[in-house]
Amino acid sequence: MTPENISKAKIKWMRSLQLKKNRESEGLFVAEGEKIVLEGLSECPDDLLMLVAHRDAQSLVPAFAIERTVIATTTELEQLSSLRTPNRLVAVFRKPAALSLKKGWLVALDGIQDPGNMGTIIRLADWFGVAGIVCSVNTVDCFNPKVIQASMGSSFRIGVHYTDLKSFFAESRLPVYGALLNGVSYSGVDYPEEGILLMGNEGSGVSDVLLPFITDKVTIPGYGKAESLNVATATAILLAEMRRHG
Amino acid sequence: MTPENISKAKIKWMRSLQLKKNRESEGLFVAEGEKIVLEGLSECPDDLLMLVAHRDAQSLVPAFAIERTVIATTTELEQLSSLRTPNRLVAVFRKPAALSLKKGWLVALDGIQDPGNMGTIIRLADWFGVAGIVCSVNTVDCFNPKVIQASMGSSFRIGVHYTDLKSFFAESRLPVYGALLNGVSYSGVDYPEEGILLMGNEGSGVSDVLLPFITDKVTIPGYGKAESLNVATATAILLAEMRRHG
Repeated sequence: MTPENISKAKIKWMRSLQLKKNRESEGLFVAEGEKIVLEGLSECPDDLLMLVAHRDAQSLVPAFAIERTVIATTTELEQLSSLRTPNRLVAVFRKPAALSLKKGWLVALDGIQDPGNMGTIIRLADWFGVAGIVCSVNTVDCFNPKVIQASMGSSFRIGVHYTDLKSFFAESRLPVYGALLNGVSYSGVDYPEEGILLMGNEGSGVSDVLLPFITDKVTIPGYGKAESLNVATATAILLAEMRRHG
Repeated sequence: MTPENISKAKIKWMRSLQLKKNRESEGLFVAEGEKIVLEGLSECPDDLLMLVAHRDAQSLVPAFAIERTVIATTTELEQLSSLRTPNRLVAVFRKPAALSLKKGWLVALDGIQDPGNMGTIIRLADWFGVAGIVCSVNTVDCFNPKVIQASMGSSFRIGVHYTDLKSFFAESRLPVYGALLNGVSYSGVDYPEEGILLMGNEGSGVSDVLLPFITDKVTIPGYGKAESLNVATATAILLAEMRRHG
């Protein structure tokens, strides 16, 4: 069978999913780009609702997905895309049921705002085998198209939970390693096999109300005149170090 | 004296500096945002050519810069900005004379394309006290507005040189540590006090022609299913480790 062409109504509907409130009410999200879409099809084939393929990219569509595929022109892909440079494959997936948190290290994010940072941290969590990510409710939506993009497919493997971090820490028995400017050097710490790495907002750091839950303050020493590190690069350095011990 | 309002011609001229060829022919670049502009004024006061301030941000302008300041409305700032959300301070600076490379670790970048990655690496180089950055000629322009933005002011302190990396490595006596997927684990290496860290393109890695110059191949071990790390986060992990030894 040959897939049909995309309708104007479907283009409009896909654009509507760029807004968080629509993603939430429909329980859906959009993935763009060949690599990311193909990882999604491989990891979560049952969650695929609709696949949009450029005419020249039809050969990339796996057999099981053809019934759910529509064809689009370059102009139509530009219209439905959230990116400046549209891709040849774009897919709508059902949001996965919240993955349960496994045993091991968790990353807790307190108010991260930049989608690129969020996606990069999801990719890092996947690389370093982190058990899951727990976020404050004011953290950027993990199904934001730019987060999905920056995660390079890792969004399909890493569970991200939104909750009140204060209650979460109060109920958890795990030690909380907070990245702060006034802690001990991260490289001198003997990390346990399980724990929580807490990273704060890009501008203001960890919220005051969470400070009492931090059991170990860690800092990455600086050697130049830069005031701070980007939160995703700091997370990279800390996770790499924990992995070496854990 | 009271600064005058910005002219239409100046708005057009500032927009023209979003293009690399115009930045090169004029020897100028643009910095946007309060934090970044104020760092530029502090680090390179003599290089300031023109400062654009929102009426409400005039109090932020240091006395020495008032003669070079013009006032703009929100709409005018939107017109001249390269960013979606314009800032209250935007400045045109003369490009600094190429900073000489100091003794110590250098970072070499082979074809990095993403301005966010480039700016983040400049910020990392500043944090870890790297002596300078050397780039292949096909690496993104370090004066691209998004690079300046992501560097968070570190662009004013870290010298970035564009050259043929093959000739550069051939003439250098420093060991070249290449980040590759088939090297030894980065954490088992005894790093010297001086060397070059070579990072490759986001998609294709280090060019084949540069491989023979690598004296030490290093790899960051992965523990999950992610295919690769983002180049800026990999640079973070490697520079942090080198600093611990150097």
